[in-house]
Amino acid sequence: MSAKQGNSIDKHAEASLANLERIFTLPEGADSTLMRLDREISENLAGFLRERIVAVEKDLAEVEQDFAESRLPEQPRFVAEQVEFLLEKLVAHSVHTAAPSFIGHMTSALPYFMLPLSKIMIALNQNLVKTETSKAFTPLERQVLGMLHGLIYEQDDAFYEQWMHNPDGHLGAFCSGGTVANITALWVARNRVYGPRPGFRGIAREGWLRALRHYGDEGAVVLVSERGHYSLSKAVDVLGMGRDDLIAIPTDGANRIDIAALRQRCQQLKQQNMRIMAIVGVAGATETGSVDDLQALAAVAKEYAAYLHVDAAWGGPTLFSNRYRHLLAGIEQADSVTIDAHKQMYVPMGAGMVLFKDPQAQQAIVHHAQYIIRKGSRDLGSSTLEGSRPGMALLVHSGLHILGRQGYELLVNSGIERAKAFANLIKADSHFELISEPVLNILTYRLCPQALQHWLQGADPEARRQANLLLNRLTRQLQKTQRERGRAFVSRTQLNPERYQRLDTLVFRVVLANPLTTDAILQQILQEQWQLAQEPQFAEMWQQLTALSALPLPGP
Amino acid sequence: MSAKQGNSIDKHAEASLANLERIFTLPEGADSTLMRLDREISENLAGFLRERIVAVEKDLAEVEQDFAESRLPEQPRFVAEQVEFLLEKLVAHSVHTAAPSFIGHMTSALPYFMLPLSKIMIALNQNLVKTETSKAFTPLERQVLGMLHGLIYEQDDAFYEQWMHNPDGHLGAFCSGGTVANITALWVARNRVYGPRPGFRGIAREGWLRALRHYGDEGAVVLVSERGHYSLSKAVDVLGMGRDDLIAIPTDGANRIDIAALRQRCQQLKQQNMRIMAIVGVAGATETGSVDDLQALAAVAKEYAAYLHVDAAWGGPTLFSNRYRHLLAGIEQADSVTIDAHKQMYVPMGAGMVLFKDPQAQQAIVHHAQYIIRKGSRDLGSSTLEGSRPGMALLVHSGLHILGRQGYELLVNSGIERAKAFANLIKADSHFELISEPVLNILTYRLCPQALQHWLQGADPEARRQANLLLNRLTRQLQKTQRERGRAFVSRTQLNPERYQRLDTLVFRVVLANPLTTDAILQQILQEQWQLAQEPQFAEMWQQLTALSALPLPGP
Repeated sequence: MSAKQGNSIDKHAEASLANLERIFTLPEGADSTLMRLDREISENLAGFLRERIVAVEKDLAEVEQDFAESRLPEQPRFVAEQVEFLLEKLVAHSVHTAAPSFIGHMTSALPYFMLPLSKIMIALNQNLVKTETSKAFTPLERQVLGMLHGLIYEQDDAFYEQWMHNPDGHLGAFCSGGTVANITALWVARNRVYGPRPGFRGIAREGWLRALRHYGDEGAVVLVSERGHYSLSKAVDVLGMGRDDLIAIPTDGANRIDIAALRQRCQQLKQQNMRIMAIVGVAGATETGSVDDLQALAAVAKEYAAYLHVDAAWGGPTLFSNRYRHLLAGIEQADSVTIDAHKQMYVPMGAGMVLFKDPQAQQAIVHHAQYIIRKGSRDLGSSTLEGSRPGMALLVHSGLHILGRQGYELLVNSGIERAKAFANLIKADSHFELISEPVLNILTYRLCPQALQHWLQGADPEARRQANLLLNRLTRQLQKTQRERGRAFVSRTQLNPERYQRLDTLVFRVVLANPLTTDAILQQILQEQWQLAQEPQFAEMWQQLTALSALPLPGP
Repeated sequence: MSAKQGNSIDKHAEASLANLERIFTLPEGADSTLMRLDREISENLAGFLRERIVAVEKDLAEVEQDFAESRLPEQPRFVAEQVEFLLEKLVAHSVHTAAPSFIGHMTSALPYFMLPLSKIMIALNQNLVKTETSKAFTPLERQVLGMLHGLIYEQDDAFYEQWMHNPDGHLGAFCSGGTVANITALWVARNRVYGPRPGFRGIAREGWLRALRHYGDEGAVVLVSERGHYSLSKAVDVLGMGRDDLIAIPTDGANRIDIAALRQRCQQLKQQNMRIMAIVGVAGATETGSVDDLQALAAVAKEYAAYLHVDAAWGGPTLFSNRYRHLLAGIEQADSVTIDAHKQMYVPMGAGMVLFKDPQAQQAIVHHAQYIIRKGSRDLGSSTLEGSRPGMALLVHSGLHILGRQGYELLVNSGIERAKAFANLIKADSHFELISEPVLNILTYRLCPQALQHWLQGADPEARRQANLLLNRLTRQLQKTQRERGRAFVSRTQLNPERYQRLDTLVFRVVLANPLTTDAILQQILQEQWQLAQEPQFAEMWQQLTALSALPLPGP
């Protein structure tokens, strides 16, 4: 019976649904499947993930068949039945992101305490948009933002005493992730750069057309290195500038923004009467982990009176490390900084933050309503892009207190040092080629025998190009095969290394944030890749590479 | 020792932190405070909330003192210590949103099964931005979107077979909440209305200035009733139009958009060479629960070739009810619809959705990157405003299956019918005045004795204005006092009722979504308000009202 044809609710259903309110008042029995799972996760998370997720990958098209029904379920279903379905069809075919050999993306293991604390957060079901639905969560969130602000900007105690809980100011905003954080930062930048002045009520009120007319600009741009995160391109689109107005500046050999090229481009744009609205520094590039020279960026931003934002979604927690925080020197000169707590602060998915140097900066985006976030209220919703939001700050607060700065430093340091160790492993292995040296805990490499590396550098351009295409096919196919076998996972991306005349080069990308990843596991990942490369599916690629290079390659 | 002064990690700390990895491998002991809480929540959520949250409100300024430290904790802290802190300082002073007498906002009770299922979601820590970190969660999310699409648009099976899992199309997007959903919808609207055509690569590439020049428009506007949600004002600001370009259209006596006024305004704007970019229908106004005449709106949108979005963040689930879905008739003509699962689908905070009629609509905002969401991939991140996102779809899927359409219908019906019952209670009580009749499950009222109501309608304008200001003070103070006493919570907002010549009128706002709210509780809330109004703090207001009206008012 479809929703359209049926009576409102048939009699049979009415009887069985009459006590629907039970689902709000009666917990699942202690012996139910769901409660057994609940305990299993509490007592042995690693075991739960290891046993419930199948290792070998099922083709996604096949998985889709389990989710093919498009009609709404008409009748209720027993919780146990739904749980069995989820275990078999969903959990089994999800990704073991916490596995120490899952080193391909930025999602990794969680400290145990995060799970029961998440349950408290969900049980309370607070909504941070307003104090009437969050009370103590509001000052807690403000405190967390204050602490992170201090990590970056190191203002004195008097500053935080004045601003941390001041409803007229904001030290930052929580958001669902780094993308919303970056959009929020550039939204603030835009509304400040094109703020109100006599004869103009500001871009927030009047929009782009009048803003450009009033300020006499031909257009406005945001500049970032070619390693900038794709969320920035989304941001300029959303904010009404157009993606062409995100200017990608080339990088040096270490994937850092080329400061001379940036300055030159700024000069050129100025001559075209374009406003340098913002410059974005990258502190932990998604693909390579590289960090721009933030001091130099700040100087350029100052020179062009541009807003400076630093996207430290990944690299921000490096500041916890007294040993490595110098890598981000200059970050305190940024007008705003993005940090994701669900990355290197080991909080579950959905916790981004943007911090603003100036506690008044968010005034540029403030908004009010009659029933909440009224003027003068302490409601956090008045200065965030999002409306209703969960109490994720509880988890960030707990991470900060249970681990302490020293705990986070240890995690940060060990990630960076493990990356260096892995880079050494790769360099010592004649089958592999390190493409980008790790600065933080991210590196890229590919399978490319040493002899071939030498040959490539001396080869004529066309032969090099062809060999490189073959190597790209090899990388793509190897990465996919390894993922499907389910023992390990590295991701892949495309870089344009200087040493190969910036040819499009596919590489394995490795993110070392899981403290349980050992050197032995890294060694095994290389071994598996090499073994896989001997399989018949790769024979043709090796033959063609041999034919091109005339080298006795060790392929199959 | 501050973070700046200390050595990287002092020796003592190094020793005690050496086994930091234990927090990733060893669960809390079964007898730890945290695990006891974990069980307490599983076994008796209602008891946990009742006992752990203190009823009487502590002043927020006082609460802030517990979150006053701005310096990062240097040393790690025991989990138990943090949990004690959270219980005493945070949980105790959070809001009991699940209480049946908490009827002031849209956050209410959760079905029991949502908690352990959330724990599974968090334990898996999937990231929906890409299939490499979500696998089966991607088809699951697509299925949920398909089902909701079907609830609104009722396309045939062949349509869903073609589109539900088609990487070249999207039936909608999950997002953190209704605000991001509304922004996404208007982002799509903007990019489609100002799409690419010969000589112009589209607003997404070239921005507002060139878009308006190319299309020859003086500007662009979005129209919505004065009851539209404040997120729309944020949306037009973010999207670069300016808040002035959100045109608020007056409403009729039932808080529905005045269609004649809308048409007149469109005509006027057209004459000014303004583009009617989008019209937004309200299906469940945040303040009054009212629903626009969506059929009529669709006709106007068609007339002006405007994009039609319906903000059904609140009212969308009314479609589950065969008895009441007619209230949203015409919604199937909308280009897009916002629905929040964390509202009337009883999912924890952080689950919004936007559905698009045309599976190709989201192409207008598609973006790619090299390491994920590559062209041709099934990665959902290519067409969402957000990047990394949690697997909330698991909870929506479970709600849909465990409750079924019939279960949701029962919840929706009982909310609507309880609101009608409450409206009758208010009307029958000579101390209160119903301000807006419930259409769905939201109503507004105030304390205003019947004699005073009659007097107000006949009073001279100045006396009426003064009395109304006094009533506003009364409403504000009563709402605050009742909240602080902790037995019940209604919210307040400001309306401009026709019957009082559109004077600014403060009202109590009630949202009846908790199935555990009984008529008896509603009766008690009225009684408490009346009793509170007899307290000395209100004596002066009553005296002034008596002086103005010369009525023997029943105040203290």
